[in-house]
Amino acid sequence: MWLDHAGDTAPSRAGDPLIDRPQFTIPTAAADLDSGQLSAVELATTMLERIARFEAEVGAFITVRRRDRILAEAAASDGRRRSGTTRGPLDGIPVAHKDNIATAGIRTTAGSRVLRDWVPQEDAAVVTRLRDAGTVLIGKLKNYEFAHSAIDNQHFGRTVNPHDPDRVTGGSSSGSAAALAAGVCLGATGTDTGGSIRIPASFTGVVGVKPTFGLISRHGVVPTSWSLDTVGPMALTASGASMLLTAMEGYDPRDPGSVRGARASEFVPRADLAGLRVGVERDYFGSGLEPDVQEVFDATLAGMATLGAELVEVTIPNAAHSIAAEKAIVYPEAAAAHEQWLEEHFHDYGPRLRKALLTGYFFRAVDYVRAQQVRRSLVEEVETALSGIDVIATPATPRVAPRPGETMADAAGASHVLHEYIRLLVLPNLTGHPAAAVPCGRGNGGLPIGLQLIGKAFDDGKVLSVAHAVERHARATGATDLAAHSARR
Amino acid sequence: MWLDHAGDTAPSRAGDPLIDRPQFTIPTAAADLDSGQLSAVELATTMLERIARFEAEVGAFITVRRRDRILAEAAASDGRRRSGTTRGPLDGIPVAHKDNIATAGIRTTAGSRVLRDWVPQEDAAVVTRLRDAGTVLIGKLKNYEFAHSAIDNQHFGRTVNPHDPDRVTGGSSSGSAAALAAGVCLGATGTDTGGSIRIPASFTGVVGVKPTFGLISRHGVVPTSWSLDTVGPMALTASGASMLLTAMEGYDPRDPGSVRGARASEFVPRADLAGLRVGVERDYFGSGLEPDVQEVFDATLAGMATLGAELVEVTIPNAAHSIAAEKAIVYPEAAAAHEQWLEEHFHDYGPRLRKALLTGYFFRAVDYVRAQQVRRSLVEEVETALSGIDVIATPATPRVAPRPGETMADAAGASHVLHEYIRLLVLPNLTGHPAAAVPCGRGNGGLPIGLQLIGKAFDDGKVLSVAHAVERHARATGATDLAAHSARR
Repeated sequence: MWLDHAGDTAPSRAGDPLIDRPQFTIPTAAADLDSGQLSAVELATTMLERIARFEAEVGAFITVRRRDRILAEAAASDGRRRSGTTRGPLDGIPVAHKDNIATAGIRTTAGSRVLRDWVPQEDAAVVTRLRDAGTVLIGKLKNYEFAHSAIDNQHFGRTVNPHDPDRVTGGSSSGSAAALAAGVCLGATGTDTGGSIRIPASFTGVVGVKPTFGLISRHGVVPTSWSLDTVGPMALTASGASMLLTAMEGYDPRDPGSVRGARASEFVPRADLAGLRVGVERDYFGSGLEPDVQEVFDATLAGMATLGAELVEVTIPNAAHSIAAEKAIVYPEAAAAHEQWLEEHFHDYGPRLRKALLTGYFFRAVDYVRAQQVRRSLVEEVETALSGIDVIATPATPRVAPRPGETMADAAGASHVLHEYIRLLVLPNLTGHPAAAVPCGRGNGGLPIGLQLIGKAFDDGKVLSVAHAVERHARATGATDLAAHSARR
Repeated sequence: MWLDHAGDTAPSRAGDPLIDRPQFTIPTAAADLDSGQLSAVELATTMLERIARFEAEVGAFITVRRRDRILAEAAASDGRRRSGTTRGPLDGIPVAHKDNIATAGIRTTAGSRVLRDWVPQEDAAVVTRLRDAGTVLIGKLKNYEFAHSAIDNQHFGRTVNPHDPDRVTGGSSSGSAAALAAGVCLGATGTDTGGSIRIPASFTGVVGVKPTFGLISRHGVVPTSWSLDTVGPMALTASGASMLLTAMEGYDPRDPGSVRGARASEFVPRADLAGLRVGVERDYFGSGLEPDVQEVFDATLAGMATLGAELVEVTIPNAAHSIAAEKAIVYPEAAAAHEQWLEEHFHDYGPRLRKALLTGYFFRAVDYVRAQQVRRSLVEEVETALSGIDVIATPATPRVAPRPGETMADAAGASHVLHEYIRLLVLPNLTGHPAAAVPCGRGNGGLPIGLQLIGKAFDDGKVLSVAHAVERHARATGATDLAAHSARR
């Protein structure tokens, strides 16, 4: 399959083998599988060959499943297609899961030494749902220790940004983003408590969705922060992410955050944005951006206007308090989640995470209560901002992927780079609104820049519809080089 | 008016002037106002005369409004009725508000010395709504200090239970319940964080509703616990409470707990319970009851079956954890709400409440988080118990109103009486479900016994419909002596 499709391979950046990838996206592969041009076994074999070629350098996986098991799953998919019992558009699509998501019989480490030997008995809800949709599971993807987005302990080795080996992928869903960008799987799951899907999506030029809180079950996901954690899809394109999201969504009584009857709005692969109103907040989300991000963001907004969107200024007066509120909530919630593990595996924790978790025990309930009150007022502010608006557009991260260990100054002075990662992203975690990161251009060093789109609750489909139009426009104008991936759409 | 209606006065307990009251309920008075048999001025005058007669002994009010202001409001109502611009069924109905609910221009103490001189600039949302419905405001009603249901500091003097001057009314909405039982107003507001409406309703034989969380705006209510506080109606009958609830309900962006589009299900004044399924939980709610309460509860269930209800056993496995979870949530939330007042008015607090509030600062956030997790699992358990069921029926309190200072032993041994007050009531506060207390019989000393009915979220109307059938049946069978009040329905 790899050889058959060799002619489709288009280097995105000359001379960089990591992104020397075939033009597969979920929709193109699904179309090829459907037409018989491609078999699931051929597709899975291609992924295995690409893993053999790139994985040593990229480091996306903690566990790659045994070849025979992957190919058996792919063969079963081909069998269903032959017998007319295919399970839908994702049947035969190769996916991989973030390693804090339980897979029955497959080691699930959560990127930690604490769980380095854990082999779950039961699949997480999203694993079951994606298997039921016919996807072929390739393996388990690296993440920052216990999925803390701003604490990059990486016990299983660094994940390299496929766009530049000297850049980080961001986290915590580092392996998910890198695997997609390197073309070693077509769909991935991630988790996002404070940007953990959208940061690496933005840094590696892929699409990542933090869904509406309550839309996708977290059953079987190693918890970080019970009131903020979400599980979401990641893919090379918005339409691929939408297909995964549709398979993953739905009420699950085993997740205390799950919402009865939860279902996202419909995804429509729009070519334009006519009739849509796009909110732009300048005060918090428009400040402290690196010049390259500012330029790409402005160009993206101009592009959205060209596509017919009406740009509307909105305000979210207390957006700047989202960081403090998020910390006062995450620290004690994570400390509560880790209490038993900390007692039994104190020395298995990385020092930075251990310190952060211990800090969590010293938060007072009254301060946590106040943070939840701030959070509630932010929900109201975002609801108000979204009233009469379709989506709010912001940059995903205020700069491109930094080098490992790099610090960065923001507009207000020196600031730790990890704080800057999450600055524009935690608000939707706090408020529960859906938020997607979609590549919209390239900045310093040709590195990807992401746009964040925030929608109304359960309007995840519309968020991805707008993302689709944005990514299409970015490719058409040469702002991104994902054109290779869309040629077969 | 008092003289005109003298013939309708029927002593409920021979020789007890406190309950020597006219047969007015909200629906009967509304019908009389509508037919022209009664004017709002006559009705308000009756209330003032009854206050003059009974208030010194009952002690329901902190503030009675000036007579001329009350009568002017009543005269305006009569004017509207004459000119055909009446505001609906509550126009002209005399009501009073719990004194932790802000009334513009009228002192609002929250039963505290801290706020003894506070004259709000703005009405609370429910005050505005009930005024817009045409009600006539009589005054402000006593409550336990800052509405803590289990801490009966009473800076403005004790409220006497109109059924027995040697019995407490319970709290914190003590004045609301006593005023209704003494017939000095026809409708009242209360607040309920952990039983504060249902305890005094149960002890005084009136109907009290803790509405679905988010149904009725708390804007302008002195906060106790932001995630548990509710405001609800109290009246002599379920139909009266329902009329108040309809006027009070609705979304209000000024209350962070308010739910968009909030509206209760329809109230239907049912004579029977045919086709309804009533859940009964025996393990937690059926244990530790005093014999008289057990007997009346069993007879009430039998009566509901006679009315056509199907009784269904349900389980709520962790109901017993509701008390601990409620405390871990209320203490820090109240401490957060009181921080500034404690700094500025430390010595104005009663010693028991001050100690409780100070305790709240020592709760750890991780423990609060765990309590919220228990709470979430209780929501799921109650939802499950209610699935396929219309309402759950429990006793409201495990015993009749105690004497002041009395302690009581429960089935498990000695227990402070104040703990027993709330034991059966806090679960719906935690889970947000609507719960009404309705009188269903009489126990030791002829004192009222209440039934608690818990419904699905926003099914407050159905809860009151069932309450209506229960109260009708209790009167018809002589289990309660509210027959006097229903004679004119």
